[in-house]
Amino acid sequence: MNKHPLPPLTHIPANLQTIADYEQQAAQHLSMQTWSYLTGGAMHEISVQQNLLQFQDIQLIPRHLNDLTHGHTQITLFGKQYPHPIFLAPIGHQQLFHPQGEAASALAAEVMQANYILSTFSNTAMTEVNQNYPFKWFQLYWQGSRECSLPLIKQAEASGFQAIVITIDAPHVGIRDRERKIFFQLPENMQHPHTPTHISFPDVSPTEHPLFNGLMKIAPQWHDIEWLINNTQLPIILKGVLHPADAKKAVEMGVHGLIISNHGGRILDTTICPLHALQKIRQLVPTDYPLLLDGGIRRGTDIFKAIALGASAVLIGRPYIYGLATAGALGAAHVIRILKEEFEITMALMGTATIKDINNDHIYLD
Amino acid sequence: MNKHPLPPLTHIPANLQTIADYEQQAAQHLSMQTWSYLTGGAMHEISVQQNLLQFQDIQLIPRHLNDLTHGHTQITLFGKQYPHPIFLAPIGHQQLFHPQGEAASALAAEVMQANYILSTFSNTAMTEVNQNYPFKWFQLYWQGSRECSLPLIKQAEASGFQAIVITIDAPHVGIRDRERKIFFQLPENMQHPHTPTHISFPDVSPTEHPLFNGLMKIAPQWHDIEWLINNTQLPIILKGVLHPADAKKAVEMGVHGLIISNHGGRILDTTICPLHALQKIRQLVPTDYPLLLDGGIRRGTDIFKAIALGASAVLIGRPYIYGLATAGALGAAHVIRILKEEFEITMALMGTATIKDINNDHIYLD
Amino acid sequence: MNKHPLPPLTHIPANLQTIADYEQQAAQHLSMQTWSYLTGGAMHEISVQQNLLQFQDIQLIPRHLNDLTHGHTQITLFGKQYPHPIFLAPIGHQQLFHPQGEAASALAAEVMQANYILSTFSNTAMTEVNQNYPFKWFQLYWQGSRECSLPLIKQAEASGFQAIVITIDAPHVGIRDRERKIFFQLPENMQHPHTPTHISFPDVSPTEHPLFNGLMKIAPQWHDIEWLINNTQLPIILKGVLHPADAKKAVEMGVHGLIISNHGGRILDTTICPLHALQKIRQLVPTDYPLLLDGGIRRGTDIFKAIALGASAVLIGRPYIYGLATAGALGAAHVIRILKEEFEITMALMGTATIKDINNDHIYLD
Amino acid sequence: MNKHPLPPLTHIPANLQTIADYEQQAAQHLSMQTWSYLTGGAMHEISVQQNLLQFQDIQLIPRHLNDLTHGHTQITLFGKQYPHPIFLAPIGHQQLFHPQGEAASALAAEVMQANYILSTFSNTAMTEVNQNYPFKWFQLYWQGSRECSLPLIKQAEASGFQAIVITIDAPHVGIRDRERKIFFQLPENMQHPHTPTHISFPDVSPTEHPLFNGLMKIAPQWHDIEWLINNTQLPIILKGVLHPADAKKAVEMGVHGLIISNHGGRILDTTICPLHALQKIRQLVPTDYPLLLDGGIRRGTDIFKAIALGASAVLIGRPYIYGLATAGALGAAHVIRILKEEFEITMALMGTATIKDINNDHIYLD
Repeated sequence: MNKHPLPPLTHIPANLQTIADYEQQAAQHLSMQTWSYLTGGAMHEISVQQNLLQFQDIQLIPRHLNDLTHGHTQITLFGKQYPHPIFLAPIGHQQLFHPQGEAASALAAEVMQANYILSTFSNTAMTEVNQNYPFKWFQLYWQGSRECSLPLIKQAEASGFQAIVITIDAPHVGIRDRERKIFFQLPENMQHPHTPTHISFPDVSPTEHPLFNGLMKIAPQWHDIEWLINNTQLPIILKGVLHPADAKKAVEMGVHGLIISNHGGRILDTTICPLHALQKIRQLVPTDYPLLLDGGIRRGTDIFKAIALGASAVLIGRPYIYGLATAGALGAAHVIRILKEEFEITMALMGTATIKDINNDHIYLD
Repeated sequence: MNKHPLPPLTHIPANLQTIADYEQQAAQHLSMQTWSYLTGGAMHEISVQQNLLQFQDIQLIPRHLNDLTHGHTQITLFGKQYPHPIFLAPIGHQQLFHPQGEAASALAAEVMQANYILSTFSNTAMTEVNQNYPFKWFQLYWQGSRECSLPLIKQAEASGFQAIVITIDAPHVGIRDRERKIFFQLPENMQHPHTPTHISFPDVSPTEHPLFNGLMKIAPQWHDIEWLINNTQLPIILKGVLHPADAKKAVEMGVHGLIISNHGGRILDTTICPLHALQKIRQLVPTDYPLLLDGGIRRGTDIFKAIALGASAVLIGRPYIYGLATAGALGAAHVIRILKEEFEITMALMGTATIKDINNDHIYLD
Repeated sequence: MNKHPLPPLTHIPANLQTIADYEQQAAQHLSMQTWSYLTGGAMHEISVQQNLLQFQDIQLIPRHLNDLTHGHTQITLFGKQYPHPIFLAPIGHQQLFHPQGEAASALAAEVMQANYILSTFSNTAMTEVNQNYPFKWFQLYWQGSRECSLPLIKQAEASGFQAIVITIDAPHVGIRDRERKIFFQLPENMQHPHTPTHISFPDVSPTEHPLFNGLMKIAPQWHDIEWLINNTQLPIILKGVLHPADAKKAVEMGVHGLIISNHGGRILDTTICPLHALQKIRQLVPTDYPLLLDGGIRRGTDIFKAIALGASAVLIGRPYIYGLATAGALGAAHVIRILKEEFEITMALMGTATIKDINNDHIYLD
Repeated sequence: MNKHPLPPLTHIPANLQTIADYEQQAAQHLSMQTWSYLTGGAMHEISVQQNLLQFQDIQLIPRHLNDLTHGHTQITLFGKQYPHPIFLAPIGHQQLFHPQGEAASALAAEVMQANYILSTFSNTAMTEVNQNYPFKWFQLYWQGSRECSLPLIKQAEASGFQAIVITIDAPHVGIRDRERKIFFQLPENMQHPHTPTHISFPDVSPTEHPLFNGLMKIAPQWHDIEWLINNTQLPIILKGVLHPADAKKAVEMGVHGLIISNHGGRILDTTICPLHALQKIRQLVPTDYPLLLDGGIRRGTDIFKAIALGASAVLIGRPYIYGLATAGALGAAHVIRILKEEFEITMALMGTATIKDINNDHIYLD
């Protein structure tokens, strides 16, 4: 976080060994403006902090002396096998962090065989992501109407994306004190190939409430989700679910999976911790119903804990951006590699040979 | 907090975006004496701190994809509609903070359509508050006897005040270490139009206890409240209730509403947190019985939490004084506006279109 | 805490308003050696800290609008009325803190009508304490045998002491890191009129355990307590009880009262907090059985909390020594006065007119 | 922790009175590299910290006035009497800390009659430890196969070791951030008499998982433990057990004792605290089944708490290395002596004459 950010590195120095190392390094490569945008969150950033702390409070009870030969980290989601459960969360505007933006992070995902979720607000078009890479999903921000949203879905289908993730927790931007204090703005000339023009806002008469009759009119609603399910062959995944009642409703409606997330603490401060929400929701959805956990993953032990508490896979967000900012695709790939290796070693130390072996019997609930 | 306080501002600088910003700014405009009086509290100020922390410990569980069009923030109290649930707590001696004192804060309330509660110890007379402004209540400090208290009530009725708030939690001034350390005194020439002469204290013989047979003789008692109810057509609201048994007694006696409050932590240190008291009291009063929450509100999410846990409306105190000290009516109005906007955005992010939709199903109780 | 301690004051400066003020002031009047002895405790001093924190965790629920006229602070113990429940704990070697030692603190107690408990290790003889002052007890450290202990009891009876407090929690001195680090020693020429010669230690053969067969042989045992009850008309009070089973045994044996105490955290670190022990013990002794609470009292609210949780009275220790070190009898008396006034104001703010009115309905148990 | 470590002392200065004193002193005698290796742990070192904090959270309830004469600290394990329950944990490479390495710490154990557990990775051969010293066990790291492990066991039997402790919680080295950051390496010329050659790793084909089909192939499994029991007359003790199900399985298989340990927080971060695991495991093994507690012992009160919660004995690790680094055998012996004396005084202050008297009735569970 400094006045003269360093250019990205073209190799990985030996001292970058953990996500924390990458976080520290990335701060050298970004302006204070971008750094605040990346690391900040809503209001007092309590949820940003809680997303990290939620993992520290959970204690592991290892098993020993099991046969771990033939162990692996594969998972199956929607009938498809993924090599490991570390997915890249959808993050927009990645050219803020590195000139190659999403092109670089998608490449990193491919190198590490990580499922990549491309954001609607990507600076890289869906069509520019390797058409043959099998592990990629598309994240949809509702475009104000069905007619405006459908073309993006069809484009995702055509480009080989395997699922649609629709973000439902941000009908209004978060009140981010840190960003507002520095009057953060996206660069004027930044390209967003999926949303080249702005969504047109509805007219609000002076007697109407500007928020509820304005922005809220173009937010997606449950019937839009139903329509979405009926208008694509791809699995539909809701991102941002925290309330058990929403989870229940989604399952009943035919939604194919849920990402338990508080949007990295960037939208609403002091939400329930995703890990707590996960536990509550796991209890009321069918066994093996896909629940992904997003928020606060920084170590291999965190991944283990999320899975033990019911997650089918996890999303990482800021960590791979730290890698991207530090050294482009190379850095992002190294971040994924670090987490993957830490996770595998954790599996070994916990006495679990496969993802299926991991459950809440490995967790100490005080 | 400085030797040479700045004069109040006449415009709002762009960097004043949150209540915390206003708190920091107000410290530039007040002497150390006044600042200590405003921000300090009883003894170790644990309750002052707890009033803030009580909100952080409560986690929100948002709902999503609901239809929020036609949302609004109106509430109904005593058969009257208020545009939103953010009320201005009674605070005396406001000329300490700005030359225009209560005249300015009442104007700010009017601009923002916030209910205003004028203190007995106001420097501005009831008659000077806009007679036609419909959202205003009068706060009564017991004047030592029924005869001395009645004229104030009749004056409030005549001036268009809509309810009487009687403060019951301060029969003795708080032991405020910070104030005492600097030997704080009100300015000698300060005008208090409602209490131009001092209450005469009862004689205490040398064999009697000076506190119990002195000050306590002129404190209000339950039978005075009963008399009060019978001697005005206005709703009677008790301010400072924390004990469920007091709440029950008040309801049975015909008191019309309660303000759950520990007086901003200024009277008794280490009391039960108002939010905890609210939850206990909500359980034993009739549905829709007016319970207002006072203490520690600094963000729109705090307002949402108070309502979700049973509050009909909330009072803000120090926040609007921060605005007043910074820029008079303009500053106080901006503070209310900030909280109102944060609250509306919180409602939208929580998936609630009206105040009635907010309930404890939105709260995670660990 | 300094190299050149100031002499005691002969008047009370206006800025000494709280016990915390006195603590800070006393540090100016004592050498680092004495200060460490006074304020230090066993091992990591966790219990020293916990004794203070135990009160902060307990929240008050005030009652309002009660009739408090004719209120008072009197209590009755062993058939005798005491003006208020603030007693002075037995502390030895008080000439360390002020040249007049216990003579000064006993005088302060008399001025404030506080019950005074004189230590066996007093530098002032029992006979030098005002024979006519009715509120005084004698604290006994077991003198290694019944024969050596009896004369002290008989002397206490003859000198008008009203009860015998026997300290049972210190058969071995505490492991006080802070004292040991500075090699603290009592001054060689210090006079202890009640224990002019040292207790003779038993012989320990080389095959015997030096601790268990040495010091432990001269520690008091239950049968000694029984003997004590039978050999004096004065009430016998055990000081240092924390275990409910010990409390039960004491009551059954005919002990007249208990002081729940961890010796100010000076003997054993990380004990149960006295307030927790009090609550457990109050449940199993007869109603009105005298239980005194010792440890951590610094404010009037602390006294209220102790009584609400079952204490008949409280002991203060270090606080009055802060007063003594600052300004002799005058300072010690002022400390008692501060606590008494804070306690009375707390009673008024809590809506309680007498000690009997205070109970655990005034406490919020989370 | 400094650039120019001091040579070990040849006497004990008077200011070394506690384990904390020794920790501070040892830092003066070790290079930053060695210090980081000694004191660091896995990842964020949360378990390293928790191992210490777990004792602070547990409160003692002392008993008083008991007869403690004839008290002692003896325990019986596997039919053999040990003078006291403070054992020295197996720690490898001790020449890192003092030129005499394990030879010095074994001598210290002998002087203080403490049971000594020699590590497989010792720089001192089993045969060099006093053949006649009766209190010594051998710790086995599995040598990749039964054939490679058996010779060490036979050598331990021949050298008079009384039990085999097999460490089961480290099939992979811990991810130790602090060590990795400084690129810690053992000195190249360091001698390990029990493992003169490296274990040969299995071949892993490119399609196999390098961890699960590599290192995990040579980790010990349950059937190896069974084989071990059948191939030695010595008691077999598993070190590193935390999961109750593992404890149950071990007991059923005929394992003779368990060391509840998280390897000093060096292998896996954020494990269950050993004290919590101890309590869970004590409930399901037979009465008197040997359970040893390892991790975080720094004071005599800690030893008491471990025993009260079900431990038969405790292991100390880093503390005796602090002594070793400070002053060789003399320092290590003094560390044991400090803990032993603190433990005896704690027993006296808790009113317990023997180890059998210590139980969870002395513990306050909040």
